[in-house]
Amino acid sequence: MPRTSEPGRSVSSRLLQVLFAFQPEESDLSLAELERKTGLPHATVRRLVMELTNAGALNRRSDGRLTIGLRLWQLGTLAPLTESLRTTAQPFMEDLYTALHQHVQLAVLEGQEAVVIDRLSAPKALGLVSQVGGRLPLHCSGVGKVLLSHAGDELVESVLCGQLRRYTPQTTIDPEALRRELAECRRTGTATVHEELTPGADSVAARIVDGEGRAVAALSVIVRSGSVKQQAALPSVIASGLGISRLLGWRPGIKIRQG
Amino acid sequence: MPRTSEPGRSVSSRLLQVLFAFQPEESDLSLAELERKTGLPHATVRRLVMELTNAGALNRRSDGRLTIGLRLWQLGTLAPLTESLRTTAQPFMEDLYTALHQHVQLAVLEGQEAVVIDRLSAPKALGLVSQVGGRLPLHCSGVGKVLLSHAGDELVESVLCGQLRRYTPQTTIDPEALRRELAECRRTGTATVHEELTPGADSVAARIVDGEGRAVAALSVIVRSGSVKQQAALPSVIASGLGISRLLGWRPGIKIRQG
Repeated sequence: MPRTSEPGRSVSSRLLQVLFAFQPEESDLSLAELERKTGLPHATVRRLVMELTNAGALNRRSDGRLTIGLRLWQLGTLAPLTESLRTTAQPFMEDLYTALHQHVQLAVLEGQEAVVIDRLSAPKALGLVSQVGGRLPLHCSGVGKVLLSHAGDELVESVLCGQLRRYTPQTTIDPEALRRELAECRRTGTATVHEELTPGADSVAARIVDGEGRAVAALSVIVRSGSVKQQAALPSVIASGLGISRLLGWRPGIKIRQG
Repeated sequence: MPRTSEPGRSVSSRLLQVLFAFQPEESDLSLAELERKTGLPHATVRRLVMELTNAGALNRRSDGRLTIGLRLWQLGTLAPLTESLRTTAQPFMEDLYTALHQHVQLAVLEGQEAVVIDRLSAPKALGLVSQVGGRLPLHCSGVGKVLLSHAGDELVESVLCGQLRRYTPQTTIDPEALRRELAECRRTGTATVHEELTPGADSVAARIVDGEGRAVAALSVIVRSGSVKQQAALPSVIASGLGISRLLGWRPGIKIRQG
């Protein structure tokens, strides 16, 4: 963690530092851990934590550890493209899940990553890292490729020219090969990914488009590599993506926008 | 809205004021509206909004209006008793919904209200105000009565001695009558509410208990008043509540805690 307690930093940026110190794998923190993670002085962290708990943004558990508070969760539900998109997509995701009995994921673009805003999975389905609120790389996940292929040139160049992590031996990290793949994703509105992110797992993804032709989200099903389900999954995922898109106002003939 | 720009207020409290100005019915705001709602000076709001958008906590739409950002939504997913409880409860809620085809709601206690953390509803189901992230009164909603009946004495007294709003002619607002009702809710772990919050709508609710015997949430089904479904709903809601409780570690014989 970078130490960022230089005097020039504003109070509000320190408050955001304290909040964003909470992470999926570190969702409860002690005061001492918060000090370590933010690099801020004890007295500052103490005062900010008091203000945040008073406002309901943080919550102090009975064991003294801190967690994100329910009021912050409520505030988060107001973010566009989260709860309303989840509600719209839910019946389609359930039907997909019933048909295929594997992980079904819904994701949107955030910065240089895809964020999983909803998922359905069976206890016995393939083990997988993603969870609601979790992040997936754009260059080698199904939803990521679909979202990136519809993004503006600036983001595409930034991702392709950046550090392309090789998650498995199958991960495509050659920018030119990725460029060709993205062109194909854009043309078809889908992506099929073989073990590029997780060994043994394939992803079949399709775009979700709104009434103005923007690809606002992507839907995917994760199936065991090489299983016959992958071929079966693609038409279902495409149909579900179109169904959700129609509820968002998309109609055949509306031009798909780039960026 | 109270004007709270007095000089004594700290920068961090101003930042929280800006964030909490966003509400379910006002989830996108212009700079001018934020100024009006917070009572803060133009320059302060501008600067705070810039910091918040840079951090991804707020998002500026192409039309210039501000919304809650996806990073804040992600942060909110880390709040205990939200995503993990939703995931656990989801299959039970779906089964309830399939069986009854009416609104199914999952709620937790927050301050002096119940917060809806998930819901399933059919497009044709009874019109209802609540939504994910929305709030319900403790004294006259099904989930509210269940949650309140398991809360500590301090909260119970504070609610019963406070302003008890009469939402409909059926709303019980007599503290002694409510006290008797709550004792019954605590004994049975359920509440049945007839048109106390919305005319024409009844609610059947049951507690969800964790491995330490704490009533951490409540589940409810909303049915049309007087329909035969209400009698049918109660055993289903109880069974679903018990099923979710078992997944949280509860077992028959674990003593239900108060407060």
